[in-house]
Amino acid sequence: MAALEPMYRDLAEERALMSPRVDNIAPTTHPGGYYAFKHMGGTWPAQGIQALRINSDVVTHPVIAGKPRRQKQPLAPSSKGGRWVGLVLLFSTQTGALLAMFPDGVVQRLRVGAANGLALKHLARADAATLALIGSGWQAGAQLAAAIAARPLKEVRVWSPRKESREAFVGEYRNVKAVETAEECVAGADIIAASTSSMVRVIEPKWLKPGVHLSCIKTHEVDAEVLERCSRVVLHNRKQAKQIDNLLKDTANVAKERGKSGWWNDGSGRFEKYPDLCDLLTGRAEGRKNDKEITCFVNNVGTGLQFAAAGAWVLRRAREAGVGTELPDDWFSEDVHP
Amino acid sequence: MAALEPMYRDLAEERALMSPRVDNIAPTTHPGGYYAFKHMGGTWPAQGIQALRINSDVVTHPVIAGKPRRQKQPLAPSSKGGRWVGLVLLFSTQTGALLAMFPDGVVQRLRVGAANGLALKHLARADAATLALIGSGWQAGAQLAAAIAARPLKEVRVWSPRKESREAFVGEYRNVKAVETAEECVAGADIIAASTSSMVRVIEPKWLKPGVHLSCIKTHEVDAEVLERCSRVVLHNRKQAKQIDNLLKDTANVAKERGKSGWWNDGSGRFEKYPDLCDLLTGRAEGRKNDKEITCFVNNVGTGLQFAAAGAWVLRRAREAGVGTELPDDWFSEDVHP
Repeated sequence: MAALEPMYRDLAEERALMSPRVDNIAPTTHPGGYYAFKHMGGTWPAQGIQALRINSDVVTHPVIAGKPRRQKQPLAPSSKGGRWVGLVLLFSTQTGALLAMFPDGVVQRLRVGAANGLALKHLARADAATLALIGSGWQAGAQLAAAIAARPLKEVRVWSPRKESREAFVGEYRNVKAVETAEECVAGADIIAASTSSMVRVIEPKWLKPGVHLSCIKTHEVDAEVLERCSRVVLHNRKQAKQIDNLLKDTANVAKERGKSGWWNDGSGRFEKYPDLCDLLTGRAEGRKNDKEITCFVNNVGTGLQFAAAGAWVLRRAREAGVGTELPDDWFSEDVHP
Repeated sequence: MAALEPMYRDLAEERALMSPRVDNIAPTTHPGGYYAFKHMGGTWPAQGIQALRINSDVVTHPVIAGKPRRQKQPLAPSSKGGRWVGLVLLFSTQTGALLAMFPDGVVQRLRVGAANGLALKHLARADAATLALIGSGWQAGAQLAAAIAARPLKEVRVWSPRKESREAFVGEYRNVKAVETAEECVAGADIIAASTSSMVRVIEPKWLKPGVHLSCIKTHEVDAEVLERCSRVVLHNRKQAKQIDNLLKDTANVAKERGKSGWWNDGSGRFEKYPDLCDLLTGRAEGRKNDKEITCFVNNVGTGLQFAAAGAWVLRRAREAGVGTELPDDWFSEDVHP
């Protein structure tokens, strides 16, 4: 959160730059799957860093516990079996040089959590003490860490459709209680944080009691009905809405992906009026005004700038600690004019 | 040319995919310079290849021989001194894995030349025997190679503003004659090929005699006045016109870059009606019809797909020859869901 906040301030002042997230979707040989190539860039002159985050995935849409999910398949061969492929590249804006490459997974989780944590600081009640986690996967851990960083929590409950998943989560984190139903999880909670791969709504309108704060990492987790009940909604970045506009035409799954609507594109235009996180952090948009408001942060899309900010921090710390593998500069530069 | 032609056929049939070229322009510390980060992607399912080509450059706009140029400064540190930074990454659309990384310079040149060579095959007169090269830099060599591959040339002349540059070119290639003036170079030429970094017109309308073919690698090399005199104009890719829409606001050079117009954006809309190279290669657009036509190919923008096609070829040849450095797959994959 400390690494990202100054970046959001520079973004608000137009002293940092994003390139649009691009998703390429194409046929692949994996049964029921499609190939998804995603990249997003961010330039943060204050740190002299250009970041590019790249994901290269084979994706399927299995139905789990009755609901469709979006699953990336770990198919990349390695000495440790099938793995995922996500990379962050950092370049110097002063010399152009490639400074570092590292897998995106850990940073990806933390920068999502950090954005939700920064929003939570301004939107959750000051005395918020009970956290309900909907979803118990990898991202839920970062939502937990962010909430702990922002508020002195007294109780954390977790629910997800599969019992083994929530039990595993409880085994990993201290002082978290797994519960049997979503209703039990959210009852009386000050903060409801969703961390799911669901492609349909997971937060029910009837859960929204006065004073609650909703923290989402995916637009699909809420819909217009939920958002209408909120006093205040903040997006991560309204301009960087996901674009899937360059699809190949000849696979069923590609057609399915194209058909995905999500609340962003409901045509009303109202979602574009919600302020961004950087507006909230710089006071251009107001945070919570009283203890009755229902507030909501939707981390609607990630940005390459998050990887520039987190990456600058990772690079500095890695150099201090002397970790990583130094590769020859000559491999990543050239003596012919490109 | 052989590596790229099947890709253009797939592109015409929508069996290959491009992501838009993105240019990020930001302030840098180099005097009179700005930082330019560029990337373009291409997916070619027939070869199972996703390519991403990345350029990370510090750029200046010096005036040379009275005309403004766009120069990339070799500032990246290496054991061999300052170098440029351009990289091609290849991923598998079947597993997601990173297959290869290599500097873009040599391939960058050859894919530009290959596109112009493929166009030349369909647009230059069958008996074209005299080639006039305007510009004698790195790209001119590929234009020469492409023209030789497409037509049985008898005479090649070269002119560029700086004598030492054209003399160096003549020293590198056999049977090329350097001349003192542009007029001497183009007199009676069947093909005029421009390979410059000029930001203003380098081909003069009065040079356009019946039957000539113009081969350009930059939109700035020709303007509306030149194009109006052509019987037939083909673009590399009209949809991938360069976009510089995400500029930071606070440097003079950024403002200069923003102010660049070029003929693409003259507002008439007519340039969008010119066919693409892939239309020409698949017969959707006609090539030269008679010996009197004045034809023109403008390689208006590069595409990531060129790097997918050339990269698939490079990768296959590198594996056959056992060249390159194998790095651990584990470095470029991860065991956490990204």
